[in-house]
Amino acid sequence: MSDNEPATKPPPKVFHRGRTATPVANSNADKKEVPEFEPFGLMPRGPPPLIEFLDIWEVDMLQTQSGVNKPQHNTHVYANDRLIVRRGQEFQLKVTFDRAYKPSEDQFAVEFVIGASPQFNKGTYIPVFVNKERQSPWPGRVVDSTDNVVTLGITPAPDCIVGKWRVYLAVMTPYGIRRTKWDETRDVYILFNPWAPADSVFLDDYNERLECVLNELGVIYHGAFDDVAERPWNFGQFDYGVLDACLFILDKASMPITNRGDPIKVTRIASAMLNSRDDDGVLEGNWGGDYTYGVAPTSWTGSSEILLQYSSSKRPVCYAQCWVYAAVFNTFLRCLGIPGRVVTNFFSAHDNNGNLRTDIILDDNGKIDRLRTVDTIWNYHCWNECYMTRPDLPPGFGGWQVVDATPQETSDGEVVTLLLSVVRMYRCGPASVHAIKHGQLCYQFDAPFVFAEVNSDVVFKSRNRDGTLSTVKVNTSHVGRMVLTKAQGQDTRRDITDHYKFSEGSPEERTVLEKAEEYGSEREKASPPKGDVELVMPLVEVRVGDSFELKLVLDNASDQARSVDMYVSGNVVYYTGVTSSEFLFKSPEMTLGPKKAGKEVVIPVPSKDYMRQLVEQANLHFIATGKVKETGQIISAMRVVTLHTPKLSVEVSGQAKVGEKMLAIIKFTNPFKFNLEDVNVRVEGPGVMSPKHKHYSLVTPGSSLTWTEHFHPRRAGPTKLMASLDCAALRQVYGQVELAVEP
Amino acid sequence: MSDNEPATKPPPKVFHRGRTATPVANSNADKKEVPEFEPFGLMPRGPPPLIEFLDIWEVDMLQTQSGVNKPQHNTHVYANDRLIVRRGQEFQLKVTFDRAYKPSEDQFAVEFVIGASPQFNKGTYIPVFVNKERQSPWPGRVVDSTDNVVTLGITPAPDCIVGKWRVYLAVMTPYGIRRTKWDETRDVYILFNPWAPADSVFLDDYNERLECVLNELGVIYHGAFDDVAERPWNFGQFDYGVLDACLFILDKASMPITNRGDPIKVTRIASAMLNSRDDDGVLEGNWGGDYTYGVAPTSWTGSSEILLQYSSSKRPVCYAQCWVYAAVFNTFLRCLGIPGRVVTNFFSAHDNNGNLRTDIILDDNGKIDRLRTVDTIWNYHCWNECYMTRPDLPPGFGGWQVVDATPQETSDGEVVTLLLSVVRMYRCGPASVHAIKHGQLCYQFDAPFVFAEVNSDVVFKSRNRDGTLSTVKVNTSHVGRMVLTKAQGQDTRRDITDHYKFSEGSPEERTVLEKAEEYGSEREKASPPKGDVELVMPLVEVRVGDSFELKLVLDNASDQARSVDMYVSGNVVYYTGVTSSEFLFKSPEMTLGPKKAGKEVVIPVPSKDYMRQLVEQANLHFIATGKVKETGQIISAMRVVTLHTPKLSVEVSGQAKVGEKMLAIIKFTNPFKFNLEDVNVRVEGPGVMSPKHKHYSLVTPGSSLTWTEHFHPRRAGPTKLMASLDCAALRQVYGQVELAVEP
Repeated sequence: MSDNEPATKPPPKVFHRGRTATPVANSNADKKEVPEFEPFGLMPRGPPPLIEFLDIWEVDMLQTQSGVNKPQHNTHVYANDRLIVRRGQEFQLKVTFDRAYKPSEDQFAVEFVIGASPQFNKGTYIPVFVNKERQSPWPGRVVDSTDNVVTLGITPAPDCIVGKWRVYLAVMTPYGIRRTKWDETRDVYILFNPWAPADSVFLDDYNERLECVLNELGVIYHGAFDDVAERPWNFGQFDYGVLDACLFILDKASMPITNRGDPIKVTRIASAMLNSRDDDGVLEGNWGGDYTYGVAPTSWTGSSEILLQYSSSKRPVCYAQCWVYAAVFNTFLRCLGIPGRVVTNFFSAHDNNGNLRTDIILDDNGKIDRLRTVDTIWNYHCWNECYMTRPDLPPGFGGWQVVDATPQETSDGEVVTLLLSVVRMYRCGPASVHAIKHGQLCYQFDAPFVFAEVNSDVVFKSRNRDGTLSTVKVNTSHVGRMVLTKAQGQDTRRDITDHYKFSEGSPEERTVLEKAEEYGSEREKASPPKGDVELVMPLVEVRVGDSFELKLVLDNASDQARSVDMYVSGNVVYYTGVTSSEFLFKSPEMTLGPKKAGKEVVIPVPSKDYMRQLVEQANLHFIATGKVKETGQIISAMRVVTLHTPKLSVEVSGQAKVGEKMLAIIKFTNPFKFNLEDVNVRVEGPGVMSPKHKHYSLVTPGSSLTWTEHFHPRRAGPTKLMASLDCAALRQVYGQVELAVEP
Repeated sequence: MSDNEPATKPPPKVFHRGRTATPVANSNADKKEVPEFEPFGLMPRGPPPLIEFLDIWEVDMLQTQSGVNKPQHNTHVYANDRLIVRRGQEFQLKVTFDRAYKPSEDQFAVEFVIGASPQFNKGTYIPVFVNKERQSPWPGRVVDSTDNVVTLGITPAPDCIVGKWRVYLAVMTPYGIRRTKWDETRDVYILFNPWAPADSVFLDDYNERLECVLNELGVIYHGAFDDVAERPWNFGQFDYGVLDACLFILDKASMPITNRGDPIKVTRIASAMLNSRDDDGVLEGNWGGDYTYGVAPTSWTGSSEILLQYSSSKRPVCYAQCWVYAAVFNTFLRCLGIPGRVVTNFFSAHDNNGNLRTDIILDDNGKIDRLRTVDTIWNYHCWNECYMTRPDLPPGFGGWQVVDATPQETSDGEVVTLLLSVVRMYRCGPASVHAIKHGQLCYQFDAPFVFAEVNSDVVFKSRNRDGTLSTVKVNTSHVGRMVLTKAQGQDTRRDITDHYKFSEGSPEERTVLEKAEEYGSEREKASPPKGDVELVMPLVEVRVGDSFELKLVLDNASDQARSVDMYVSGNVVYYTGVTSSEFLFKSPEMTLGPKKAGKEVVIPVPSKDYMRQLVEQANLHFIATGKVKETGQIISAMRVVTLHTPKLSVEVSGQAKVGEKMLAIIKFTNPFKFNLEDVNVRVEGPGVMSPKHKHYSLVTPGSSLTWTEHFHPRRAGPTKLMASLDCAALRQVYGQVELAVEP
């Protein structure tokens, strides 16, 4: 890449003249005023003759939280004064005229307008009539008409554009159309509607809707499949300003207004815009461990702080890792009314361009060759599922769709250079979960890539002297070991692995893998003979700072003795599986008697060895490999130890009642023998407390910090306070307390 | 869009640490030297004991044009000194050792390496052995072994990476591997191979291969379906430096090396890189008419000048319109060995995000409403077809695939902002032509978009007073009227419309359109009653500068009289259908007797009216609409008049023999009553003359220019000299002469 040129070349001009008739309307923020008076043909000279026609005194959008509209549309929870409704469902508004409305004579329309250059045939200008004989794209009716007040019922089309609409009232006079001035308070947000059967995001499950659209309280899973850790998250999709921030993201992407009624296009754009890698999007990724110039990914407690910062600064927010991308994306989905959830895939194959092999290279003694092992398996990876029909695919692939905003190698390895710097179309999905389970990888978007994340084989290859490699072991069950998401209505895990794959070793699984290969996903063909020596490393649960013992257990199934040269390598790794540093290396020699089972080797791991080098999420990765002298069999085992962090104590006092003053007490005692420096503590709670942050420069061993913060609950119902503690030496310390706020 | 910020923010850093184990190898230009000596394990102290082993004296890649390899691989035409071969087919090389080669004892390998950090399991490091017992990923054999000279035969895998490989010879000694130094002259280009059945671009038609891979002489069609114009083009895929320029495009795109064996990914990347709209790619589009700072799109005569300028400047070349994009893309395809051709679609629907409706809005008198008519139909549009299998799709969708490098609204309306400026992923295809014909729009990539380009309906809508629109006429046969490409081996047209669609009105066509709708392509539902009055505007063939008469012919099928208020609007348009200016407007009133057929209205069009406003490609667009008083029927007709330009005379003198001096004489006489200013004349011919350019500041009416240029044919065989003349007042003047060069 010729990067020696300055990267400050002005962006390419978009030539429009001669190319298209008008520029494409691509911002919800753009407005073009509709004329207050639109004459029919030529006007007679002089002032228009005074003839009597309907005049409008007042228009009431009935937008109060408790009013007729918002509770009906499940939008009363939004901290937003404007009317918010969902498409495909009727809402009401009241019009006061200067006199009683005469259906026979009077002609008027409620006009809905979005973006610049509104056009009837583009669906950006919608006039709604209430006269029986006139039919409008959005049905309208008179609900009630008493004296000079008329209550109207209007049903936005179930596939209409989602965003912030401007509302006008237009009266037809013999000479032309008279319109109300634009009044910002009459603007109406129209959202996707999972409650409406005709909407493409319709979700026919009451509890699922409550969870995946209305629930602000999230639980995100991490750690290891057999030692799962979890953390709370405040999605805050109803917080003040969040809805506008979500619409701003689409404007920032210059997404054509006319496409904004299609959840497929909306989610696809969002998956690109959530990360800043190619488009100055919402979140800047950082896996490097140095978060000096931003907030550590592990420190965030919710989405709203991030979205509000982005919409005000219009610059990427620092910093994110996969669960932050997924959590903020989830807020975007639920806020616009698309059912969404965060899922965690344990042992996720990455960056291998959708091929089904993750290679681990060993030298000819069976010792891992770190230089040549470049593929990585993430300990876990979080992405999103969103629920919608897929009219662009054959029947049967609607339902849950994978979208992923974490920057990775793009599905078809698409890479684009821009202004001489390397940027990629970091975008993934929507890909049908059903299509992935059945290996139907030909259906857009990016299915082969997601398929590889859950189905890759781990292939151990031994490097020969001449540089060639021979396959010595294939592990088909390691990757995509478990897929979890939060259960409906409760803070428990829901295992949805079977949504993504058939059970390991089942005939269906084999067929699916073959199908996937037909679509070009390479797999390892060689199947080396299964040897007679088995090696496993059992689970060890360890708290940060503790010394512990790592066990290797060997079985010899043969009736001769076996001797093995073992290599045990312990590494501090990022959750991406990338090795930071090796802190332990042992090469025990072992002999096994005939038919000997359960022979143990115990390797002590003193805390001082790993603590100094600990990075990020305190993951230790042990890989043991070896060669059986007699048979040349290569044995291997891997074990991820996710060190358990201490809990953060969160308590509340006072009566949990709307408007009443309450206290939150956050306590932490440093249990370690070392100092904690530059400690950041964050706390927030949906409907009760907006994000708060406190910094402690030093917490010495054994000493405690106590933070007391008062707050006033804004909303009744069950909620939580969620807190995090984060510093370079200790990350992922979380705490929470539940509270039920009375009205 | 908040564009008030400066657009000079540095490009986003690509964080690598903690994210991936190593950066992705994405440049063919990057090199990493392989060590000259690679010891096995520990070396004994002191100098290695002198033991006898094979030593290499010389390696001959047999790369001469006439040598054993190039003619066999159809690569002898490339103006390039290195060895160029096609994958999946054996080539030979000669190795001279210090002594005779003993198969039993001596072990050596020919190593092929591409990109940085070559890896065996990534297919970027390929050792080839010739010993029977050793099998290598690329088969190798000893063809002949006499004295100490060994001739080897090596067959690159038919799916191997395409690009420039480095070649080493490695000898295994007891202590390690001894390698030759890297020698640039031994580098080998490995290309796609349409001749090899195992290659995914295999094309099983001898003549088609000659035309779509080896032919440098192109003909590009434009104008109108019933008045087709054509122009010659020199693809020049074998010209000096062009192959390296094509590889540079992939490097510029930072396309991962490991993906470069897959024609699907290669063509998809290229379709994005050919235009500069989002990625600082090869060509800057300009439809505006002002080409002061570059070359007018109509002025280019071939691709090589463009590609060489891009690879040296690393900046977009100015300027292109659709046929330039398509022609240069075609050079890229044929140069790398992917069968490709340029096709022209007449009346191509555009920028409508793959929906099947192009709206023309009329006011309530039946007069066209230019303000509200925003959809455009291009008079013609050029794109490419490339030939390959589609393993990513179900069987049956391989063969010709549409790829399009002209920037348009992207298929799924994808739009991405970068550095606060609007950029789009301008990328289209590959989309299976077969899938398009059968309405299988669910198969990647971008099929719905191409489908709309050939299948949209033209819908006339009348605007009601209240702002709503009613459909008054639907024309289902206007768009995608004809698809042309050059015939095999001759300069005649080949109509391939039936590759894209079933015949108009056939039952198959109906089924396909319904299928397409299932995949979400909206179509016009309303079918207004067919009226009893018919209007047509017959073809008129006109030369630039001539006055002419436009005819309107009306038929009245009813048995009552009919009277019509007509509106005839004549406009100078860009070939994109966008109106530049209206130069004629007439509103004749007409009455038709009962059962009256063939009633004519003649409208004189004096040249002075249009000449002054002529833009670009001298297209006039007439639209006649009207309303029948008695029935309210809306009638309409459209007619594109592509003004014929004078020919450019090109002659040669001297004996057409390789190396002999010849003369080219280019003549033009200004036939107009006005001056031609800043006239650019270009000429070139594959194998005979590289692009030449001459500028004439003024050619007065009636005066002539004559340009005599001498040249020496470099290659034997039939070829052409192609010339263009271009100035603001007169574009698309072309001329050519055929010549058969003797050896």
